[in-house]
Amino acid sequence: MIKNSFQAKCAAIAENKIFTNTIIGLIIFNAIIVGFETYPAISNQFPSIIYWLDTLLLAVFTIEIIIRLIGSSSLTAFFKSPWNVFDFIIISASFVFLGSSYIMVLRILRVLRVLRAISIIPSLRKMVNALLLTIPSMGTIMILLGLFFYVYAVIGTTLFASISPEYFGSLHRTLLTLFQVITLESWASGVMYPILEQDPSSWWYFVTFILIGAFVIINLFVGVVVNNVEEASREETPSPTDLKLEEMEKELKEIKALLKEKSTKD
Amino acid sequence: MIKNSFQAKCAAIAENKIFTNTIIGLIIFNAIIVGFETYPAISNQFPSIIYWLDTLLLAVFTIEIIIRLIGSSSLTAFFKSPWNVFDFIIISASFVFLGSSYIMVLRILRVLRVLRAISIIPSLRKMVNALLLTIPSMGTIMILLGLFFYVYAVIGTTLFASISPEYFGSLHRTLLTLFQVITLESWASGVMYPILEQDPSSWWYFVTFILIGAFVIINLFVGVVVNNVEEASREETPSPTDLKLEEMEKELKEIKALLKEKSTKD
Amino acid sequence: MIKNSFQAKCAAIAENKIFTNTIIGLIIFNAIIVGFETYPAISNQFPSIIYWLDTLLLAVFTIEIIIRLIGSSSLTAFFKSPWNVFDFIIISASFVFLGSSYIMVLRILRVLRVLRAISIIPSLRKMVNALLLTIPSMGTIMILLGLFFYVYAVIGTTLFASISPEYFGSLHRTLLTLFQVITLESWASGVMYPILEQDPSSWWYFVTFILIGAFVIINLFVGVVVNNVEEASREETPSPTDLKLEEMEKELKEIKALLKEKSTKD
Amino acid sequence: MIKNSFQAKCAAIAENKIFTNTIIGLIIFNAIIVGFETYPAISNQFPSIIYWLDTLLLAVFTIEIIIRLIGSSSLTAFFKSPWNVFDFIIISASFVFLGSSYIMVLRILRVLRVLRAISIIPSLRKMVNALLLTIPSMGTIMILLGLFFYVYAVIGTTLFASISPEYFGSLHRTLLTLFQVITLESWASGVMYPILEQDPSSWWYFVTFILIGAFVIINLFVGVVVNNVEEASREETPSPTDLKLEEMEKELKEIKALLKEKSTKD
Repeated sequence: MIKNSFQAKCAAIAENKIFTNTIIGLIIFNAIIVGFETYPAISNQFPSIIYWLDTLLLAVFTIEIIIRLIGSSSLTAFFKSPWNVFDFIIISASFVFLGSSYIMVLRILRVLRVLRAISIIPSLRKMVNALLLTIPSMGTIMILLGLFFYVYAVIGTTLFASISPEYFGSLHRTLLTLFQVITLESWASGVMYPILEQDPSSWWYFVTFILIGAFVIINLFVGVVVNNVEEASREETPSPTDLKLEEMEKELKEIKALLKEKSTKD
Repeated sequence: MIKNSFQAKCAAIAENKIFTNTIIGLIIFNAIIVGFETYPAISNQFPSIIYWLDTLLLAVFTIEIIIRLIGSSSLTAFFKSPWNVFDFIIISASFVFLGSSYIMVLRILRVLRVLRAISIIPSLRKMVNALLLTIPSMGTIMILLGLFFYVYAVIGTTLFASISPEYFGSLHRTLLTLFQVITLESWASGVMYPILEQDPSSWWYFVTFILIGAFVIINLFVGVVVNNVEEASREETPSPTDLKLEEMEKELKEIKALLKEKSTKD
Repeated sequence: MIKNSFQAKCAAIAENKIFTNTIIGLIIFNAIIVGFETYPAISNQFPSIIYWLDTLLLAVFTIEIIIRLIGSSSLTAFFKSPWNVFDFIIISASFVFLGSSYIMVLRILRVLRVLRAISIIPSLRKMVNALLLTIPSMGTIMILLGLFFYVYAVIGTTLFASISPEYFGSLHRTLLTLFQVITLESWASGVMYPILEQDPSSWWYFVTFILIGAFVIINLFVGVVVNNVEEASREETPSPTDLKLEEMEKELKEIKALLKEKSTKD
Repeated sequence: MIKNSFQAKCAAIAENKIFTNTIIGLIIFNAIIVGFETYPAISNQFPSIIYWLDTLLLAVFTIEIIIRLIGSSSLTAFFKSPWNVFDFIIISASFVFLGSSYIMVLRILRVLRVLRAISIIPSLRKMVNALLLTIPSMGTIMILLGLFFYVYAVIGTTLFASISPEYFGSLHRTLLTLFQVITLESWASGVMYPILEQDPSSWWYFVTFILIGAFVIINLFVGVVVNNVEEASREETPSPTDLKLEEMEKELKEIKALLKEKSTKD
């Protein structure tokens, strides 16, 4: 019985506006600290202050997550939300590497805590959820794009590995180069022209890759995004057309009622 | 009483078409002058002419703004419109720096007066208002984008500050570099390859940044813009569907009236 | 009377499918010749053949335009169509420069004749007309963009003329540089970094220019294009919704007729 | 009779889920092998293993295609599907070059077999079919774009062949350069500025090319894509408006029936 009331209290605290806002404030404070830390002039002058602030923040975030864990109805209910899993991993990983000499990892974990703002601020969480929801609908076209990249990467490595080892030396290098080419960055001046000097007919490789790639990617993004926007606009507000239709339907029902009434009267 | 009739006169002048067109003409003239001023050959040969023309224009714009200020019903009514505030700041700032030695500031203020064309030409003002209205709906995604940039900037500075100090030397430098990377300008040839030579596994940083960034930004812009276009097209013209529905509604009412009439007759 | 029948004959010829297809064929032939001409190896070996073919083509195109001119009801009717004006200018300009030593101009006139394919092939003419129709709706945003470019160009020339004369040396040079920056080509590596070395705070100029410029241009293009697509899809096919509404309207009229009939019967 | 039952068996096998999944698995295995083959360290160490695996895969794919060929009702029915033609060419080409010394060609054929994943996995085939269907609607604008490129290529070669032979030396070189310019890659820093130094008025060539090209291409892609998305969303789900209309139509019919019934009663 005692435990239950304790759990209810924890749930109440976790839902409390002041508590949430305090955590948001501390996340912003955490963001400022990791920002300052990147400046050696600051991090070297006050190493102990930053260390203690960081330990304090970790402690508060740990307590927060424990409160939310206790406040939730069950362990499975808590870990059902991917955001809670995300929070838990970020915080517990800080403990795993605590005191270790992997300073880089610790620093990156500290800055990843800033991303917890997404899991705490509802509007951000909603938006990220919406963005993530568009990914499954891109599944098939992603496989297609992967196939397309892989085939071009194997062809490119086969043809140009000896001519341009820095860009096409190995399959993974070629994949990176193809990513660079599809972003159109230095694809001609940096990648194609040195190869063209030795193999003047190699332009077809780059031109077809860019044309097909751009065509598929444009179809991918515009298709998905426009689709989502249309869906959203359809769901959100009933259009004036629909409102008018509803009114008309009401009137039709009235007419039918009038007619039926008369029929029975007769 | 005298004051009121004077105010009415000022309001009439401010609304007058000839008055507005004269001001538009003077703004264009102002634009031409600041253009010529950038050519040292011209500005050095006629320094006094340009100076006097500029003083004259400032005087006319000052009188114009005073007329509009008097013509408006009250001070608060005048400053309610952000465009009036913009006009007032541009003109009064010219007085603050008048005679000062900050020639650069004065010149920039003079060219900013050209932007007053927006506040005076109604179609431009309408369009800028429409553009500005799309900004609030981008609020959440902007915060998300800010978080994303900040986290990548801290990670980038932590990892690459010693390898590539010119691009990742400090947090603000990294933020500028990330902006460059998201515009896809020299991200591979200029920024990534020198780092890749020392840290061959660093490609994930750039590739994930570009993929996530492009995904979020495309969702941001296309979402907002398409939404606005749809809204605009819905508001502007009643669709043929809606026109037909209105006609049908009329007919339905006639039918109901006919039925009710009969009911009462019976 | 004789003249009239001659005119009718010319009109018939101008409308004739074989005649039009022959002209299209000759335009393609003209395109191939101007293509070959650019290869010095070919144009130097057969200078007289190319010369005679070109004269022949000009003669045929002149006769064609005369036939169409005579075939049209009046001179004003002929020159009412901007495409006819375009054809006339292209052909008559060839005569103006005939025998002149401006070989470059003659060559360019010859290749511009290839564009006559647009005025002759109906589907191409329709598409170009559709593209040109989207331009007026971009009027206001174009003025806005012009203002924005001009203000940034004056500020850029004022601030950076002495630091980077090759990019910001004069107002027209700066306008070209700003066009380069808005296409995101080498804006950072080529234009900004050399300036940043001397004026470390100048990044705001480039970042705000790109952000505002991209925002306005995206709104410009996407807005106009989506608008046009929507309009086109609305005009082309009656939607299933509209078809159903028409059917319902017919039924409503039948019901009303039935009711009125009864009323009169009673 | 025996042959017919054999054909039916083959058709059954070709439709069998396990059979298809095995082939998909082998295609993935084929993809992994061609990937490993690009690493000389691996392909040089196990040349015979790779050779035997490859021969085995070719044998299996050949048997598969023969089964599907026999299983189809007739040869013409089989080759009616472009995907079957594609499969047949890929496999039979492997036999044509079998044992030849064109190792490059053989390797490329081997990687092209990976594309057979598209012809076998239904969702991929459906998506590629959808993408290919958008191509015919781009026909006219493609011709327009071709004309536009050709005219600019001839003009560019005529004007700049002597100034910048590496970019505008011949018509085909200029076409490649124009493709580079339209992707905005190094168009200013690499292509335009060296020419601008000798011919300061040549900026119009690049600026107009980019402006017109971007305008046409944006119209091309956005037009086609948005059109397709709209069509898809119209076909897929009946909108709530249409559902409501159907309901209303039913009610209208009921009212008419009621009225007619009464008329006959009277």
